[in-house]
Amino acid sequence: MEMECLFYNNMGTIKIHKQDGNARLGSIGTAHGDVTTPVFMPVGTQGIVKATSHRDLKEMGIQIILTNAYHLYLRPGDVLIKEMGGIHKLSGWDRAILTDSGGYQVFSLGVLREIKEEGVVFQSHIDGSKHFLTPEKAMEVQENIGADIHMCLDECVPYPSSYEYTKGSVELTTRWAKRCKDAKKNSNSLLFGIIQGGFYKPLRIESARDLIEFDFDGYAIGGLSVGEPKSIMWEMVDTVMELLPLKKPRYLMGLGFPEDIVEGVKRGIDMFDCVIPTRHARNGNLFTSCGRINIKHARYIKDTGPIDESCTCYTCRTFSRAYLRHLFISHEISSYYLNTLHNLSFYTNLVKRIRDAIDSGTFDSFYNDFKSQWKGGELQDEYSICNG
Amino acid sequence: MEMECLFYNNMGTIKIHKQDGNARLGSIGTAHGDVTTPVFMPVGTQGIVKATSHRDLKEMGIQIILTNAYHLYLRPGDVLIKEMGGIHKLSGWDRAILTDSGGYQVFSLGVLREIKEEGVVFQSHIDGSKHFLTPEKAMEVQENIGADIHMCLDECVPYPSSYEYTKGSVELTTRWAKRCKDAKKNSNSLLFGIIQGGFYKPLRIESARDLIEFDFDGYAIGGLSVGEPKSIMWEMVDTVMELLPLKKPRYLMGLGFPEDIVEGVKRGIDMFDCVIPTRHARNGNLFTSCGRINIKHARYIKDTGPIDESCTCYTCRTFSRAYLRHLFISHEISSYYLNTLHNLSFYTNLVKRIRDAIDSGTFDSFYNDFKSQWKGGELQDEYSICNG
Repeated sequence: MEMECLFYNNMGTIKIHKQDGNARLGSIGTAHGDVTTPVFMPVGTQGIVKATSHRDLKEMGIQIILTNAYHLYLRPGDVLIKEMGGIHKLSGWDRAILTDSGGYQVFSLGVLREIKEEGVVFQSHIDGSKHFLTPEKAMEVQENIGADIHMCLDECVPYPSSYEYTKGSVELTTRWAKRCKDAKKNSNSLLFGIIQGGFYKPLRIESARDLIEFDFDGYAIGGLSVGEPKSIMWEMVDTVMELLPLKKPRYLMGLGFPEDIVEGVKRGIDMFDCVIPTRHARNGNLFTSCGRINIKHARYIKDTGPIDESCTCYTCRTFSRAYLRHLFISHEISSYYLNTLHNLSFYTNLVKRIRDAIDSGTFDSFYNDFKSQWKGGELQDEYSICNG
Repeated sequence: MEMECLFYNNMGTIKIHKQDGNARLGSIGTAHGDVTTPVFMPVGTQGIVKATSHRDLKEMGIQIILTNAYHLYLRPGDVLIKEMGGIHKLSGWDRAILTDSGGYQVFSLGVLREIKEEGVVFQSHIDGSKHFLTPEKAMEVQENIGADIHMCLDECVPYPSSYEYTKGSVELTTRWAKRCKDAKKNSNSLLFGIIQGGFYKPLRIESARDLIEFDFDGYAIGGLSVGEPKSIMWEMVDTVMELLPLKKPRYLMGLGFPEDIVEGVKRGIDMFDCVIPTRHARNGNLFTSCGRINIKHARYIKDTGPIDESCTCYTCRTFSRAYLRHLFISHEISSYYLNTLHNLSFYTNLVKRIRDAIDSGTFDSFYNDFKSQWKGGELQDEYSICNG
């Protein structure tokens, strides 16, 4: 793919090579290589993507993974990771890594945490020990871990939340973002702000405007896909996208299904992460060109075909649905491995096709083809629908 | 390796290319390729070796795997496997496969089974359903599964067992062996007899002599490593080895630790199988050049070295003990995968070195070197011993 740069200057952290509608083909430079966008980042909680090995990910062309600061902070500990030379050296993954701030996991703990102006007190899910996560601490932990892209500490509010609560929360998130920026020491990494504001357009606008003032290296949209209707979610995204600077990466956090990625790219999103392909694989939910199937279904007992006829991954080249069903039913670890390979290949191939479409100026027709073929990420186990 | 044949005729099912003392370098022809011996067969209960994929095994040079007829009979069912074109086609493993008869698993069920002259009644460990396994049924199931080497149905007695019980059992095993031979229909596969006789030399001799009369394609020594002292075990092996025909493969079932393989080869054993490398991997027990370590030990927290300095497997090339410890402690599926790759590579490399030594007529010095370096397969977690 020929890479020309449409616009880029000292202030930009993404080079945009092509634009097709709002969809953008770009690249983000990191200390561990350029990341071509739009990109999907698989989640590798402990520095490795669950039920895989690094070489599988490299083979399928994965450029960047997300690891969880919360988990690594508790075990093996960020200080130990620093002492061992950082997460790349410790884990053996030599491509780009993004760490979340740990905030999302802490807020998911529910009763085990308490929010204050200074930060958030929480109890470890491993041993119940008490910890205090401040914006400064979140930066210190992330810099000790040593990933290439860091995220500000933010508060993610549930859906629904009151306007008053959300307003207080979004303003706290803004104050925390400023403190993260001030606390950043490492010049070798990028720091992204996270736009919150729940499901209130004025608060999303306020959050975006305030964070843009701080001139982060990139902007994430957080707090979405927490139970709200999809239409409201996209309304929030659209509201924010109008405001974001073109020269900075835009990252839609925690999404999603294949259709969410296609919709996000259409709106100008550059980066995605989600546990869906990996977690679903371990539950037997596998992606095909027209939707998601569950491999344990009895209809696959004698099915000699691959998971997806058009997929060229190792799993699809080697194993039938019948055998993959047998392995899943038998709780074989190999089943989680083979299923994960397929789902990650499916996602990687999807974003590659998206990039190719933008590059050739045909994203609109790609989008329409996808929409007409795709039955949705929710379970599509009607074999006749998917293969008719 | 140049392959010359020392002796081979229509009656032989193994070509012996070199002999060094009693140790033999040979090859067994199967419908899915030649198997060079001595060989270690990993156990792939469901047609795939647990926590791996076929390509990993091929990459490390594994030529044959063992699958369990008992498990496949219960799920997905041998009739279904036959309908799907056999286990090779269903599982995607295109190299040689040996199936056990199912007897060992059935006898391991304890109270859930009852032995009669006709066969053994047992209850499924999955759903409690009742089944009747006869020699004829064992052959039918194995031929439906369609592996390359089949095993006779035998009774494996515990240690200790009385002389009277063992004598009755070994004679039943002989009658069952004859019935298996008579029931064999498929000419494309080999059938091995299993020598029993517990821990009584005269009964081991009786069993071997009777089975040799039936002229099986190969002979297995069964019922060992069931709790008896090692010295008694090797006494039984030595007793039998004197009687076995040179032109037939000799298979020591269910063993063992690396030292057992080296000892077995010294006595003229050609084939081994065992769950040790794979099961131990999933428990964090990893093999090194001098013995076995457990990766969860705190002494590995900051250990930047590979599992074994002299190992060239993917795991050792990529991951430190510190990180493998972290993955194991965190119950990551990737840990089971990476550990299994290493242990299987270790075993495969061990038998490859054994074959090279026999080929170059230096097995004795290999044996002595191994014995002086190796501290035993039992836990050797004294870091200073293993690395001193």
